[in-house]
Amino acid sequence: MTDAPAGRGEPVVVALDVGGTGMKCALVRPDGEVVHAERHPTGAERGPAAVVDTILDVAEGLAGKARADGLTPIACGIGVPGLVDDAAGVAVWSSNIGFRHVPLRDLTAARLGLPTALGHDVRVGGLAETRLGAGRDVGHVLFVAVGTGIAAAHVVGGSATAGAHGAAGELGHILVRPGGPRCGCGRPGCLEAVSSASAIGRRYTELARGALVTAAEVAARAAAGEELAGQVWQEAVDALADGLATAQALFDVETMVIGGGLARAGAQLFDPLRAALRERITFHREPRLVAAALGDEAGCLGAALLALDSLE
Amino acid sequence: MTDAPAGRGEPVVVALDVGGTGMKCALVRPDGEVVHAERHPTGAERGPAAVVDTILDVAEGLAGKARADGLTPIACGIGVPGLVDDAAGVAVWSSNIGFRHVPLRDLTAARLGLPTALGHDVRVGGLAETRLGAGRDVGHVLFVAVGTGIAAAHVVGGSATAGAHGAAGELGHILVRPGGPRCGCGRPGCLEAVSSASAIGRRYTELARGALVTAAEVAARAAAGEELAGQVWQEAVDALADGLATAQALFDVETMVIGGGLARAGAQLFDPLRAALRERITFHREPRLVAAALGDEAGCLGAALLALDSLE
Repeated sequence: MTDAPAGRGEPVVVALDVGGTGMKCALVRPDGEVVHAERHPTGAERGPAAVVDTILDVAEGLAGKARADGLTPIACGIGVPGLVDDAAGVAVWSSNIGFRHVPLRDLTAARLGLPTALGHDVRVGGLAETRLGAGRDVGHVLFVAVGTGIAAAHVVGGSATAGAHGAAGELGHILVRPGGPRCGCGRPGCLEAVSSASAIGRRYTELARGALVTAAEVAARAAAGEELAGQVWQEAVDALADGLATAQALFDVETMVIGGGLARAGAQLFDPLRAALRERITFHREPRLVAAALGDEAGCLGAALLALDSLE
Repeated sequence: MTDAPAGRGEPVVVALDVGGTGMKCALVRPDGEVVHAERHPTGAERGPAAVVDTILDVAEGLAGKARADGLTPIACGIGVPGLVDDAAGVAVWSSNIGFRHVPLRDLTAARLGLPTALGHDVRVGGLAETRLGAGRDVGHVLFVAVGTGIAAAHVVGGSATAGAHGAAGELGHILVRPGGPRCGCGRPGCLEAVSSASAIGRRYTELARGALVTAAEVAARAAAGEELAGQVWQEAVDALADGLATAQALFDVETMVIGGGLARAGAQLFDPLRAALRERITFHREPRLVAAALGDEAGCLGAALLALDSLE
């Protein structure tokens, strides 16, 4: 924790969680409290250079807002999707924004004159859930975000592992159904192609031969007793349980924190998922399966935590 | 590294690698050189208590042998299979030896009067390959042992990750073929049930309706052009590539070191395995795939390294 210089305002971190469609932005106190929040469209269709400009403008605006409110911005933290080299501060690759080797940390630090940290969106989300949310006080956590895509962060002792090239935790791209539906990455049978919210909507729509339906709508129809919706939902749950069982075999965690849009289904997801995971556990210890606690603020909070860590 | 007390002999570590059928034992210098090696049958059929007695007797004998040779035993390291709680020094569970919560570290330390470390056989093997063998100078390594079973050790910065309950790295028990052959663990379709040496022998024998054939014999017949053997070999290679691709998606390593009996097939394994893995890599970086360099000495060397680490 960093104290404000004498005679200045309370310290805050400028935090941005950059997604494919929107940016969640906040001023966060070192204790994790959000003192101001705002959202902006990412505007990815304008190309990565324009997105970088927006990120820098928004970050600068937030630092200015902090000062105007009598606060002292002490650092900036940014979470972005794709492959992220945390150590070098580079957004290496992103499918939905188009980043290719963007030195976003140094660009931001230069514009703001503040120490800046760059991290992966799901890894910083996992960091926040592990330090402030559903995985608090747990040594070995797997944070799994199930939304449009599926990705995970393995957090051990409060640090998320990035891997050798910033690409660890790609749970969405493990094989669960050989010869199954083709994934956006190009391979058939990836977990993301069966159990993500978008895959659930697509699968139901395909079988019902109707208009495109969301995963939330499939969940609602399944809850109302519609057989087809129930079947599609269970298929997704079974494949997700296969993926979590594989992750447990490799990581051996105590707790799995499930976040992202699909986790909003609550007991409708967690009850059958726990049962399916239990069926698949043989000699391993069954991990505790809990819902994420921080909602879509996790990314911003985690980006702030990463920035605070980098000050130490 | 630890220096010998003044006026005494060169320091050595008493190292044991306890397997289901045999124990590899050695006196190892702090620089990794083996100055004496011996083997003993494990005698697992006598039950775990008798195996523990043998381990203690053999370790004591090695310490005595060291002293008789003018060397100074400074520590003892033991690698065992199954679930191992490294931190507590307890052999928690083993299917082939029958260990159930055996405090092997403290038992050995008490008998020998030497600081003792206990580790998992594959994790200590990975430690040795990463510090002294094929994964030297690589930050992120996955060591994969493919023999009777399949298991892996994820070694980052020279340390193997054990997980929350000493059960990380169980690559043999990830799902690769839903509805496939039943694994020893009870689940159908585990990697070990398709790609281990024992699974290859079993599968060929089943299809050929003949006498039981080993994986080495299947490899030899495939090399000689026998179609059935070639098909069984390729099926195993394909499933192994699926398993390695899943591991890469989750761990993101630079190098995968393949050891165990199957790696002795050399190019007959590595050429098609590299090709199959390359086909499966989409946006991830392809890991370097290399053969283990230390052979079956890896376990002993790793147990010694673990013991030396614990002295620090």
